[in-house]
Amino acid sequence: MPLSADQQAEIEAQRAQSQPTRRVVAEGMEDHLYTAHQVLDHGFVRVIDYMGDDAAICQAARVSYGKGTKSVQNDEGLIRYLMRHWHSTPFEMCEIKLHVKLPVFVARQWIRHRTANVNEYSARYSILDREFYIPAPEHVAAQSEINNQGRGEALQGEEAARVLEILKADSARCYDNYEAMIDQDGQQGLARELARMNLPANIYTQWYWKVDLHNLFHFLRLRADPHAQYEIRVYADAMCKIVSDWVPFAYRAFEDYRLGAVSLSAQMVTCLRRMLAGEDVTQETSGLTAREWREFQDVIREG
Amino acid sequence: MPLSADQQAEIEAQRAQSQPTRRVVAEGMEDHLYTAHQVLDHGFVRVIDYMGDDAAICQAARVSYGKGTKSVQNDEGLIRYLMRHWHSTPFEMCEIKLHVKLPVFVARQWIRHRTANVNEYSARYSILDREFYIPAPEHVAAQSEINNQGRGEALQGEEAARVLEILKADSARCYDNYEAMIDQDGQQGLARELARMNLPANIYTQWYWKVDLHNLFHFLRLRADPHAQYEIRVYADAMCKIVSDWVPFAYRAFEDYRLGAVSLSAQMVTCLRRMLAGEDVTQETSGLTAREWREFQDVIREG
Amino acid sequence: MPLSADQQAEIEAQRAQSQPTRRVVAEGMEDHLYTAHQVLDHGFVRVIDYMGDDAAICQAARVSYGKGTKSVQNDEGLIRYLMRHWHSTPFEMCEIKLHVKLPVFVARQWIRHRTANVNEYSARYSILDREFYIPAPEHVAAQSEINNQGRGEALQGEEAARVLEILKADSARCYDNYEAMIDQDGQQGLARELARMNLPANIYTQWYWKVDLHNLFHFLRLRADPHAQYEIRVYADAMCKIVSDWVPFAYRAFEDYRLGAVSLSAQMVTCLRRMLAGEDVTQETSGLTAREWREFQDVIREG
Amino acid sequence: MPLSADQQAEIEAQRAQSQPTRRVVAEGMEDHLYTAHQVLDHGFVRVIDYMGDDAAICQAARVSYGKGTKSVQNDEGLIRYLMRHWHSTPFEMCEIKLHVKLPVFVARQWIRHRTANVNEYSARYSILDREFYIPAPEHVAAQSEINNQGRGEALQGEEAARVLEILKADSARCYDNYEAMIDQDGQQGLARELARMNLPANIYTQWYWKVDLHNLFHFLRLRADPHAQYEIRVYADAMCKIVSDWVPFAYRAFEDYRLGAVSLSAQMVTCLRRMLAGEDVTQETSGLTAREWREFQDVIREG
Repeated sequence: MPLSADQQAEIEAQRAQSQPTRRVVAEGMEDHLYTAHQVLDHGFVRVIDYMGDDAAICQAARVSYGKGTKSVQNDEGLIRYLMRHWHSTPFEMCEIKLHVKLPVFVARQWIRHRTANVNEYSARYSILDREFYIPAPEHVAAQSEINNQGRGEALQGEEAARVLEILKADSARCYDNYEAMIDQDGQQGLARELARMNLPANIYTQWYWKVDLHNLFHFLRLRADPHAQYEIRVYADAMCKIVSDWVPFAYRAFEDYRLGAVSLSAQMVTCLRRMLAGEDVTQETSGLTAREWREFQDVIREG
Repeated sequence: MPLSADQQAEIEAQRAQSQPTRRVVAEGMEDHLYTAHQVLDHGFVRVIDYMGDDAAICQAARVSYGKGTKSVQNDEGLIRYLMRHWHSTPFEMCEIKLHVKLPVFVARQWIRHRTANVNEYSARYSILDREFYIPAPEHVAAQSEINNQGRGEALQGEEAARVLEILKADSARCYDNYEAMIDQDGQQGLARELARMNLPANIYTQWYWKVDLHNLFHFLRLRADPHAQYEIRVYADAMCKIVSDWVPFAYRAFEDYRLGAVSLSAQMVTCLRRMLAGEDVTQETSGLTAREWREFQDVIREG
Repeated sequence: MPLSADQQAEIEAQRAQSQPTRRVVAEGMEDHLYTAHQVLDHGFVRVIDYMGDDAAICQAARVSYGKGTKSVQNDEGLIRYLMRHWHSTPFEMCEIKLHVKLPVFVARQWIRHRTANVNEYSARYSILDREFYIPAPEHVAAQSEINNQGRGEALQGEEAARVLEILKADSARCYDNYEAMIDQDGQQGLARELARMNLPANIYTQWYWKVDLHNLFHFLRLRADPHAQYEIRVYADAMCKIVSDWVPFAYRAFEDYRLGAVSLSAQMVTCLRRMLAGEDVTQETSGLTAREWREFQDVIREG
Repeated sequence: MPLSADQQAEIEAQRAQSQPTRRVVAEGMEDHLYTAHQVLDHGFVRVIDYMGDDAAICQAARVSYGKGTKSVQNDEGLIRYLMRHWHSTPFEMCEIKLHVKLPVFVARQWIRHRTANVNEYSARYSILDREFYIPAPEHVAAQSEINNQGRGEALQGEEAARVLEILKADSARCYDNYEAMIDQDGQQGLARELARMNLPANIYTQWYWKVDLHNLFHFLRLRADPHAQYEIRVYADAMCKIVSDWVPFAYRAFEDYRLGAVSLSAQMVTCLRRMLAGEDVTQETSGLTAREWREFQDVIREG
């Protein structure tokens, strides 16, 4: 369980409160507010605040005086049109603020998305907790043989056990030494800003992360993708669930036109037209490289 | 009056609604919500939505589980510390969405602040209204004689009258011709995306503008400054009032450490120390250029 | 001709100079440097500076110590891979700085791309020239009947003549009055920051615009598109030509995977698979809306 | 020495080349190009490319047709004026691209500056080298007693020795185990994207980092500051030296108006005026908090 009793109590206290507001309220999001959705062994994602809903996207697109909604049906149609034609600014009018706890090596990937606001727990100022990500056995995977940048099947037997043993032992020893170095009992104590350098990248950190819906969709498209590293994909998956409850029309459009969509190159479109006209196109006659041809086949053949 | 009866009714309908929320509510901001604060002759600023309050700034700075508030006093102290030491990320955790109606030449200055989200009323798609900014007589000002980029005293008598006459006549004629060109009665009608090019820069446009508090403060520091052009400064002033009701601690810190603060160059600090040590420093002995010396005098002498 | 003799001489002086550098030099770009490529009646695009070339994209992707090039063939393959899989950061490692002269209504569209650096000619500080965009007769187009946000065929005969007459007359009158208002001969003279509001949106402005290659491609994808307004598309077209000479591999990949590519929604992919399996799919059985079906047909049928 | 013979040879090969260009060349920067300036024990900063010089700042500010320089003196005056009055866009017209090798815990601070382009060496794809930052004995510092977020004096004797011993031993053991886990000899080998989580934050990474001069100055103001952590400050110091050779006028203005400048709050300005008018102001009568009073004293008294 990633939360202490005190932390859980603070969260409950926040969930218990309710006040009237004139602002737009998204029912599906109110249910999520403050709840810590567990991710990995010690991590979580929880919604701290949000701004806007599906109607707010339309309101901004129409620069309306009132709610901007003509009808629910119209709204969904407009949202799908905006998504399909890459109109990004109306989606930027929704905003979400999350509290995320995550391993440092995941945080380092995450932060490459620069169009967001971040406040991270400071290990210069504070002492980090003894919490490390140790993969579940089924996620202790071998290096992929076909993709330099990926993983293959789970390791088996002794090799897997050895890896887990190493990760646990090295984490524990590094943390013991971290504590020993900063200790001020009977010695001066090393500066925290220095001691942290002894901690491995599977230690957990946490941050407040705030992002608009357009940039969140961009993040999710890359990180909820099967090629993303498993340890960040589970965070993306948790966020997909939250977003689908927050802005259901926008999320469905995102699924159809981004997550589940494919992009065909100019050459692939030409191939496709030839095939639909009855021609028997092969890689040799396609004008595509072997790699592109394989990617093309993945699109047009049943998964 | 900048609003039609219909628009006013839509705004009232929005103000009348109220729903419970678990989110942070800023009392001072709820009062502003949707109200159109008039600016210039036909413009306005109105708050469409907001996220966060003073406590939310502290909560993010502390990466807290709960509200993050220890005491109201502590919060104000922390906020002042963050502002004084240029910690910008906690202020980015508050967000505001505005609906603004403004002349095009003001919009062109405004948009130079790039770290914000914008949806502007489309003159490719829609027909603009016949609304032009005509300055009040006291704001029909002469070119400044000392500042190439500013204005001096108000024009007097006939010259002022002539200017107002020209602005009104040219606006009216250009708009008449705009209407005539797009008219589809008895002719094809010019494309709206072309016809708009006949409209002068004092026509009003409108947009939804969303920005975080840090970037809003940056905007306000530059645009609520006495050197800013009057026609954008009045928008900044209206926003300052709104922000001071929304996040009173942060706004006060902003006033003290940004708006009302001054920056002294390394050379000015040296001068100052010499003066405080009793030395009689003149421009000649100061090491400052004439211009810098004048700016320095403005700081150290009673306005 | 958009340039005065003085301006032409200044440009020639810049072109005549040549100095040795250790930096990467892109031959194709050296030829473009400083040359003003005419766009519309008085506008232009000219390259002021650039950073990087195709090899620099690969060098950054590989975080290399040296040039990072293994072979030209490898480089093109890597660039195409990066483009196909949406790796944007290596393309951000190339940068271009342009001097652009363009009508204000085009500048207002252009500036919506926020991830760029801009210095615009200041009409608060300086006096604008008497230069207005007047469309060539074949570009004086009617409002589109099927697309609210577009134009149809060129206007014919008298209507076209009337439009051109209006645009010329209103531009001339507004500029005459602009000059009269700021004139300081025998009167105080209106502040330039106010007088500019009398100028219509077809007046020319100019700016220095600096952008990285990734964001430039994003701009070009939207603005070199057939749905973009003609008056901005011609600028995009001029830039496409320049970029294809600067980074030929990257530009070709951009053409294949962005400009000429299509995106198919999840539903469209399903349709496609059914069709390739021999099924006769109609709009009714497709699960697509009428509008999406039309867009789908555009993809799969010969243009 | 941070570089292998091969790497050194690649760098030398780049330095040896020279080609003519029509672009602006900054003599001071040509000397720096590609040279790896050592920072910390295994790190470096080296310039890969640059765009612009002092004159280019003025050229953009003036939106000039030619070089934009009237005289060298004018240029320096304009640059100082722009810096003093917070005109940021002309400085954005210069750009620099660096190759930096740095410990991961420094990289994590660095990356918080979001307005830059980054390509980092991928530990998903490649194997990291066995290179760890081990502080020089004089930088093994105690936790500060007055500043929660800083360091005090160097640790002495046995305690310092113990810390160094720990850092070395834990780095070595973690890296040995990293190698053992990814090894494919006689076992499958753990995926690199997982194995990296065992590496502590003092391991070195490297990246290409590209930034404009305005944002670089912002970085340097915060990171070349005495309150910045030593391990990032040495990188900032190395960059300050490079920038001062690249754009000497801009760098001097930056030193005078940013690095060496101080900001006085509205209340401090009031105090100052009272003091200069001969009043004996104490903390009690100043209206400042004890902390602000201390900061104020630091400004007005000789360091």
